[in-house]
Amino acid sequence: MQTIQAALEEAINSKTKPPGALGRLEEIALQVGLIQQTTSPVISKSHIVVFAADHGIAAEGLVNPYPQAVTAQMVLNFLAGGAAINVFCRQHHIQLTVVDAGVNAEFDTSLPLIHGKLGYGTANYANGKAITASQLADAMQKGAAIVADIYTGGCNTIGFGEMGIGNTSSAALIMHQLCKQPLENCTGLGTGTNQQQYQLKLATLQKAASLHGLGNTDISTDELLQCIGGFEIAMMAGAYLKAFALGMVIVVDGFISTAALLAAHTYNNQILSHCIFAHTSGEKGHQLMLQYLQVQPLLQLGMRLGEGTGAALAIPLIQSAVNFLNEMASFKSAGINNKAV
Amino acid sequence: MQTIQAALEEAINSKTKPPGALGRLEEIALQVGLIQQTTSPVISKSHIVVFAADHGIAAEGLVNPYPQAVTAQMVLNFLAGGAAINVFCRQHHIQLTVVDAGVNAEFDTSLPLIHGKLGYGTANYANGKAITASQLADAMQKGAAIVADIYTGGCNTIGFGEMGIGNTSSAALIMHQLCKQPLENCTGLGTGTNQQQYQLKLATLQKAASLHGLGNTDISTDELLQCIGGFEIAMMAGAYLKAFALGMVIVVDGFISTAALLAAHTYNNQILSHCIFAHTSGEKGHQLMLQYLQVQPLLQLGMRLGEGTGAALAIPLIQSAVNFLNEMASFKSAGINNKAV
Repeated sequence: MQTIQAALEEAINSKTKPPGALGRLEEIALQVGLIQQTTSPVISKSHIVVFAADHGIAAEGLVNPYPQAVTAQMVLNFLAGGAAINVFCRQHHIQLTVVDAGVNAEFDTSLPLIHGKLGYGTANYANGKAITASQLADAMQKGAAIVADIYTGGCNTIGFGEMGIGNTSSAALIMHQLCKQPLENCTGLGTGTNQQQYQLKLATLQKAASLHGLGNTDISTDELLQCIGGFEIAMMAGAYLKAFALGMVIVVDGFISTAALLAAHTYNNQILSHCIFAHTSGEKGHQLMLQYLQVQPLLQLGMRLGEGTGAALAIPLIQSAVNFLNEMASFKSAGINNKAV
Repeated sequence: MQTIQAALEEAINSKTKPPGALGRLEEIALQVGLIQQTTSPVISKSHIVVFAADHGIAAEGLVNPYPQAVTAQMVLNFLAGGAAINVFCRQHHIQLTVVDAGVNAEFDTSLPLIHGKLGYGTANYANGKAITASQLADAMQKGAAIVADIYTGGCNTIGFGEMGIGNTSSAALIMHQLCKQPLENCTGLGTGTNQQQYQLKLATLQKAASLHGLGNTDISTDELLQCIGGFEIAMMAGAYLKAFALGMVIVVDGFISTAALLAAHTYNNQILSHCIFAHTSGEKGHQLMLQYLQVQPLLQLGMRLGEGTGAALAIPLIQSAVNFLNEMASFKSAGINNKAV
């Protein structure tokens, strides 16, 4: 009996085009077919979940030019439909869910967001652990439950975004620990710090790395996430693992989303087979993360916004890959000469 | 009074995102705004025109693994909706027009294509000129008329694709002449020739270049196109120039489409201000063409299919650029703190 992989390759090569002429789209069609174990894969009710939370490290003055209050303000902007992720999700009919994973503000309970608050921001990891063991377990469990609900609603393709002033710092520390890269290679300008602010950020992260013993191979991912957070990253790690367990297609966004995936990947390295990498972020470090995972993203647009915006722009390309597989004529069906295969 | 450029930059920077965080999309929003001279640009009825024609050079045995008959067969495939360009245009609601610019076959006059046939393929330029001066003028005029009709129907954004067994050879010779690159750098594997066929292709093109005196700076673009064709490339050159004259946004596809643009560019180098480059083709030579024009395409997906498929996949990104400019909240309108600008 022919394997699904062989059947997919035959189907892709039978289409009315030279072999390989659709480039990366052919790889994506094969991957989605393998995930769904069918030669007729479907992208169903694609969905992006944005996890928002604050970071106690902001107290160290790392959050120029945007103060911590911007996290909550951006959550309200998401709910009002005014952020970039809203625009791209509307354009491509992608469902959008916003989660308060731990924003340092109260949201009216009537607002259409998932109220998953685990705290009013993490503790400042310059002085101690960012989150407790029980907060970490709660966050990962909530992330999983959110994905399970969305899956039950008929979605089979999901991407994760984030909003959290200060969260490039946690992402840099995760990368430092898991990719074994020096902190200088992991620390970028975030949302737009200047060179002086960058030196403060790097020095603060070096102190934090030293305080928590990062670089030590005996530190588990559980311990790492407790040390430096954040709530949104932990929730996203749980969400990734659940999406994989449910057999979903996972669209991976930028620097922080990939840091959360690095964490999830230490719990289950099979997850990569279900991941499609949306884009290379303009944030320093993302390219090295992608190299570490040995993956090649679809888009290179110099974006560095987060929110899942890269994932939203990549989903139509994934749809194109599935569509050509399902809709293109074959040489045989179209009666076209072909000596190429 | 503020210039449109300054107003666009202010509008882009006022959106709820760090300055520059949408990367290339910000550049595209600025470019489309400048083309349309407005801070509220619109992508209206985007359209792709596929020009199909045959090439007499095919008689030299260059067209493995696909015989010349495939050009006509693929035209029928376009009309039946079974080609990759059909799939991507359907997905993104892009109108598609197919033009017989000079296919070596009769098409029933009832078929829904533009019957613009200038000949049953070009003459074999291994022995003489591919097309006459009057065929060239007709081709460019027809290309222009087709674009004018589409524009009249309300379209302001247009891309061009092509189908023509053997047309990477003409494109390579155009590149050789206009970009001053050695033929080795211009000649690729096309739709999938093997190494032996590649050597035959290169030798044939070297003979043709020598016969027609290519490399000589005194050769005009008119003469170049008469020497090596093809009908679809000449028609596309006329189409580009008309689209520019009408102030349209022009989406440039891959190797052959860019060769036609190189030709159009020699008639009017202002045209680049209206061009958005869709993707870097997997066909050898395309990257050097793009470097020659000093432009950076949106997508790098390793595609090398033609038909306008790269343009079709880039149009949603151009739409995203326009949408963020029109739809995103500003820091002021959303009440978000911003010390960044």
